[in-house]
Amino acid sequence: MMTTMNAQPALKLFTNPLCPYCQKVEIVIAERGLDVERVIIPFKDMPDWYKQLNPRHTVPSLQVDGKRMVFESLLICKYLNDLPAGRMPLSMYTPYNQYRIDFFLQQFDLFVTAIRNFMMDPMNEEKRHSLDEYVCYTDKLLYSLQTTGPFVCDDEFSLADACIVPHFIRFRASLNYYCFYDLFEHAPHMKKLLSVCMNRPSVRNTTRPIKEYLVAHNHHMPKTLPVSGANGNYVLFGSKMSPFVQAVRLMCASKKIKPFMIEINPSEPPTWFAYVNPRGTVPVLMTPEGVTIHESRTIMQYIHEVSAEHDCIYKGDAEKLYAVNFFMTATNWFTNALRAFLHNPTVKEMQEELVMTAKQL
Amino acid sequence: MMTTMNAQPALKLFTNPLCPYCQKVEIVIAERGLDVERVIIPFKDMPDWYKQLNPRHTVPSLQVDGKRMVFESLLICKYLNDLPAGRMPLSMYTPYNQYRIDFFLQQFDLFVTAIRNFMMDPMNEEKRHSLDEYVCYTDKLLYSLQTTGPFVCDDEFSLADACIVPHFIRFRASLNYYCFYDLFEHAPHMKKLLSVCMNRPSVRNTTRPIKEYLVAHNHHMPKTLPVSGANGNYVLFGSKMSPFVQAVRLMCASKKIKPFMIEINPSEPPTWFAYVNPRGTVPVLMTPEGVTIHESRTIMQYIHEVSAEHDCIYKGDAEKLYAVNFFMTATNWFTNALRAFLHNPTVKEMQEELVMTAKQL
Amino acid sequence: MMTTMNAQPALKLFTNPLCPYCQKVEIVIAERGLDVERVIIPFKDMPDWYKQLNPRHTVPSLQVDGKRMVFESLLICKYLNDLPAGRMPLSMYTPYNQYRIDFFLQQFDLFVTAIRNFMMDPMNEEKRHSLDEYVCYTDKLLYSLQTTGPFVCDDEFSLADACIVPHFIRFRASLNYYCFYDLFEHAPHMKKLLSVCMNRPSVRNTTRPIKEYLVAHNHHMPKTLPVSGANGNYVLFGSKMSPFVQAVRLMCASKKIKPFMIEINPSEPPTWFAYVNPRGTVPVLMTPEGVTIHESRTIMQYIHEVSAEHDCIYKGDAEKLYAVNFFMTATNWFTNALRAFLHNPTVKEMQEELVMTAKQL
Repeated sequence: MMTTMNAQPALKLFTNPLCPYCQKVEIVIAERGLDVERVIIPFKDMPDWYKQLNPRHTVPSLQVDGKRMVFESLLICKYLNDLPAGRMPLSMYTPYNQYRIDFFLQQFDLFVTAIRNFMMDPMNEEKRHSLDEYVCYTDKLLYSLQTTGPFVCDDEFSLADACIVPHFIRFRASLNYYCFYDLFEHAPHMKKLLSVCMNRPSVRNTTRPIKEYLVAHNHHMPKTLPVSGANGNYVLFGSKMSPFVQAVRLMCASKKIKPFMIEINPSEPPTWFAYVNPRGTVPVLMTPEGVTIHESRTIMQYIHEVSAEHDCIYKGDAEKLYAVNFFMTATNWFTNALRAFLHNPTVKEMQEELVMTAKQL
Repeated sequence: MMTTMNAQPALKLFTNPLCPYCQKVEIVIAERGLDVERVIIPFKDMPDWYKQLNPRHTVPSLQVDGKRMVFESLLICKYLNDLPAGRMPLSMYTPYNQYRIDFFLQQFDLFVTAIRNFMMDPMNEEKRHSLDEYVCYTDKLLYSLQTTGPFVCDDEFSLADACIVPHFIRFRASLNYYCFYDLFEHAPHMKKLLSVCMNRPSVRNTTRPIKEYLVAHNHHMPKTLPVSGANGNYVLFGSKMSPFVQAVRLMCASKKIKPFMIEINPSEPPTWFAYVNPRGTVPVLMTPEGVTIHESRTIMQYIHEVSAEHDCIYKGDAEKLYAVNFFMTATNWFTNALRAFLHNPTVKEMQEELVMTAKQL
Repeated sequence: MMTTMNAQPALKLFTNPLCPYCQKVEIVIAERGLDVERVIIPFKDMPDWYKQLNPRHTVPSLQVDGKRMVFESLLICKYLNDLPAGRMPLSMYTPYNQYRIDFFLQQFDLFVTAIRNFMMDPMNEEKRHSLDEYVCYTDKLLYSLQTTGPFVCDDEFSLADACIVPHFIRFRASLNYYCFYDLFEHAPHMKKLLSVCMNRPSVRNTTRPIKEYLVAHNHHMPKTLPVSGANGNYVLFGSKMSPFVQAVRLMCASKKIKPFMIEINPSEPPTWFAYVNPRGTVPVLMTPEGVTIHESRTIMQYIHEVSAEHDCIYKGDAEKLYAVNFFMTATNWFTNALRAFLHNPTVKEMQEELVMTAKQL
């Protein structure tokens, strides 16, 4: 890594770790390896001395050499990237790269506005379709600017990527959790871009646990959403009456996990439940990381795995793991055979299958 | 490659090299570098002693230390992967990876059932469309589980991949050969997954020549299919009357290749022929590897290349190769000019072109 | 790189640097590192001695050892690739690779014809759709022949790639510039193929500046096209009355760039303008490299960057760059606030915003 020898000015960043605009700046700082002092500014009850420093009352802002202030996240990013100190600046400044960065960021701003509008009324079918179209348009635009990808400027991580990734991270989580909307379903190029960015230390190390973003976003979301009130916890969809759901809840209780329960009547599910699970089955577990898990057995397995104690018991003991796995599989065979037999109690094969599966238990 | 020091138990695998469920186990064995004794069990006339060992009368099954039996291909795979011996186990067991593996395998089972049902009546337009939809659904599911791909767990080859690839290999071949159906036409992510897996020695070395799978699959296929009876040989579609088809058959005969001939009247092709060649032209050659070759000249070239003698004659002699290539090209020019002249015998350019192309021969 | 020891024959190539058929041959020469003497043959006023040598009056042709002539670009490529001299020949000659190359090249010829026909009447909506379909078909064909890509023979750069890339380069430029048609909008696999090829020195070093291809193509294009007469220069779409367009023209003049102006009335744009900018806004700048730039500010930034003087003034001076950037951003805020205020002069927030943005200037 080439390092320029110039001394950098003293940099003091007024910031908030949950704010996407601040993360943009942090990514540039990490990419260039700059030395920066940080002052955390709370969103609520912003101190008066800070309001004096920044008349727009926003974070981030940057103080240089204890005197002059630099405002606006994008301008701060550019300023830090232009500093003749630290590691190589981001991306080669060819005119075409500059154009790609400027034009994509400009269009991305409109995309962010479209997402925010959608979030006001996310269970509206028409608005979902119109967001789908916006997502497709933006993904196609990214594709048209790229030649080989995966970044906006192909293989160069640029200011454009640094500026869009913090929004992707937060919106993906909130759209999943609050709106049951998969931001990347129709956006393979944006999905690829985010994945590759998440592998960069500058992005990974400036990203907080997803749950924190969800909690911070909660009060921006309409209070009428099904998940309103879940507060970033696990969410379990299903009917408390169902034995499968009961089994999952028992497993959760044994692992000290308290999922937020959303009652779904499987014979008359609400329209929006199709967004959670197009196949319509319950139970479904949604994790704070935005992973949606279907099928009671898979859910129980997941909860089992996610709980800390798991590792110590069986790991590395192939015999015991096989015994457990075989028992679960055989139970499944028996349950299926029993169900088939109850439907057709006079069919000979059903009887035989039931006997055979019972023997294996 | 890290190697654990633990001694492995004695492992005896009852298996059949054509069975996809057995290949899953073989892939895990190859990945972990385990030492396994094999006993081949024929599908027909399964020996009684084996039926005693495995009451489900299936392969594969695994005997450990000469005593206890491990059943069910997936459970055997897990057992072998959990053994504290050999090379590193497949994939990191994070809860999310576990979920991706379990959920995708579960959905893949339904996909396999859908393919099997389709194969009962593959020339039915409606059923083709409904399989198309199933393929799209499964590919989209894979895409939604992946972040960067190409495997189910992104860059980690896992049990999920080991378990689906044997089915992909066999279904792709049979769907191509018997049903004229391209499994991957609407499934870029599954196509990519298979391609990357085929580059792994564990997959490549446990895969038999495709023709063997086709022959083994033959008696599962409806007897009314056009290709029924081709028995894994080359298939040639066309009219015996056509001079182009005759040229191909002559070339085949000279190379001792006996293609299974399916008569197609090019002016009234059967509806299903659109599945073989959407452009409707004949002849078409289908190879046991599932490659479909169009245009008589390309077919002849292919047969020429595929026959063993080719290499020794001209290879490396650029002059002789050019002479042959130029003659073929010039013949083509002459044929085209002759055809154009016969349509417009009074047009001066046609006459001149005919004379010029004739001179070059 | 393996090198065979055989001496190569004396090779003299009759060629023209703008001709796509000649570039195919040059790519093979560069890939194999052959030693070739070149004689440039002009398209117009082809010398008589050359017409004697090549009765078809075409370039390229190759003379070997001062005597025998080799004709036809594809046959010359094959000849040079078969020569037992220079670096390794392109691609492994398996029968399947041979088939992929032959079949794709054959279909690509039809694609080239389709593009040429389209170029006769490119503003015809129906013809655009039918070219879209042809592009999709060809891209799908490429996808069906590939397993992993990105080349026709997957990871092997072959004669097929060498033969199609020169056409891609020229057609993409002319379709963009003269026809406002993005060749790769519906062709992700061909786009990828071209991008990867452009990274090979053999392709990059045999490619001329795009503007030269555009100028050479000019007289093949219909004289009625909007861009007819632009002669490979920058093209500016917009109304001379618009202050945004005037600002761009001023910037162009200060940088000694003379764009070809196409008058667009933004309230009644011609139908074809939707091909240039689906969002319908003006001004739009089109560069000779086929990049289309929207929004007056982005255009001005681009022109500023592209002009040579830029580098010396501010580069590396983060303070000055921030001052310029902040001024431009603050101007923008002020303009927006002013516009909002003029629409709602009695709303208090508008007044406050106007005052605050004015202060920051």
